[in-house]
Amino acid sequence: MTTDTKQRILKAGAKIVLQKGFYDTGLAEVLQAAKVPKGSFYFYFKNKEDFGLQLVDYFAGQLQERAQEFYNDAELTFPEKIRHLFAWQAEAFNKNDFKGGCPIGNLALEMGDRNPLFRKKLDQVFTAMKKGLTGLLEQAAQKGEISRTLDIEETAEFILNSWEGALLQMKVSKSTKPHEVFDRMIFERFLCRSNSD
Amino acid sequence: MTTDTKQRILKAGAKIVLQKGFYDTGLAEVLQAAKVPKGSFYFYFKNKEDFGLQLVDYFAGQLQERAQEFYNDAELTFPEKIRHLFAWQAEAFNKNDFKGGCPIGNLALEMGDRNPLFRKKLDQVFTAMKKGLTGLLEQAAQKGEISRTLDIEETAEFILNSWEGALLQMKVSKSTKPHEVFDRMIFERFLCRSNSD
Repeated sequence: MTTDTKQRILKAGAKIVLQKGFYDTGLAEVLQAAKVPKGSFYFYFKNKEDFGLQLVDYFAGQLQERAQEFYNDAELTFPEKIRHLFAWQAEAFNKNDFKGGCPIGNLALEMGDRNPLFRKKLDQVFTAMKKGLTGLLEQAAQKGEISRTLDIEETAEFILNSWEGALLQMKVSKSTKPHEVFDRMIFERFLCRSNSD
Repeated sequence: MTTDTKQRILKAGAKIVLQKGFYDTGLAEVLQAAKVPKGSFYFYFKNKEDFGLQLVDYFAGQLQERAQEFYNDAELTFPEKIRHLFAWQAEAFNKNDFKGGCPIGNLALEMGDRNPLFRKKLDQVFTAMKKGLTGLLEQAAQKGEISRTLDIEETAEFILNSWEGALLQMKVSKSTKPHEVFDRMIFERFLCRSNSD
């Protein structure tokens, strides 16, 4: 058994959980999709809960990888790096007919009340995402690419929270309009420098 | 049987669905909580789905009632009426230890992928809420209480979407901070008049 097996279980599980939610996902179907015997599962995960918690890290890692790609693109200003990441997520959601969405946001509403370990884990992941975004916005402010009168940390929190809401609305309306409105409001208005900068 | 019975079923159902989600709520427990026999239920609702759809209207009606109270308060400016409504919701959420939250947002993530009738119903309710907020913001703009350079309709959509995200984050973080950040960002920055107004 290699860590490759573990990755295969997480990858298969991620796909199913994103479609059906965690609660309704059976381990049997995950193992079948991953083509892995039950014994291997318990080599890597204590139980379904442990699997779910590691899945949160897996989702966060995937997002982080994509964020890094935009971050490394020297052609983009800092606000553009951020803007492209949201646009990529909206486009992926659209391609999936607005099924699924943000796995971390979905799990937050699904599991937040049910399981305190999940709630804490998701809170940690959101906090880490906010830290990452704060770092990008700080660099943008230093370069004068966004308003200097913003409280950067609160701005990062506001943007991420608003984005989770936009994703929820994309699911309900089956349209990219919530992303478009978010995009214009945040990047063409909210972050922009004004006369008082 | 009176419409009072129907209201009692909806009221009891609302409480349980907000705590457990719609999918996991059994009709038996709703009827037991409402102290209503099974026959009465089928007098008012075709099935569980029909009950759920009418529950969405019930939730929306409750929110609308409270919104009307703030609307009628002649002491408040238009932005204050809106601001008080969000603060009231955040306070209620806090009192409930951040369990439950916005029933309409929760149902959107829970049922959006599962049931197209729910998705459409929730979309209609969100659209109606956006219209209501657009009306308030238009009056605020006319009175010069907010920036005149905003696209009012998109602003209403942005605010409501962002608020759903803030509620999700309040659940995950078990803190009112997401409301506080939302409140400051929207009412002390985003809507404010600038030099270019």
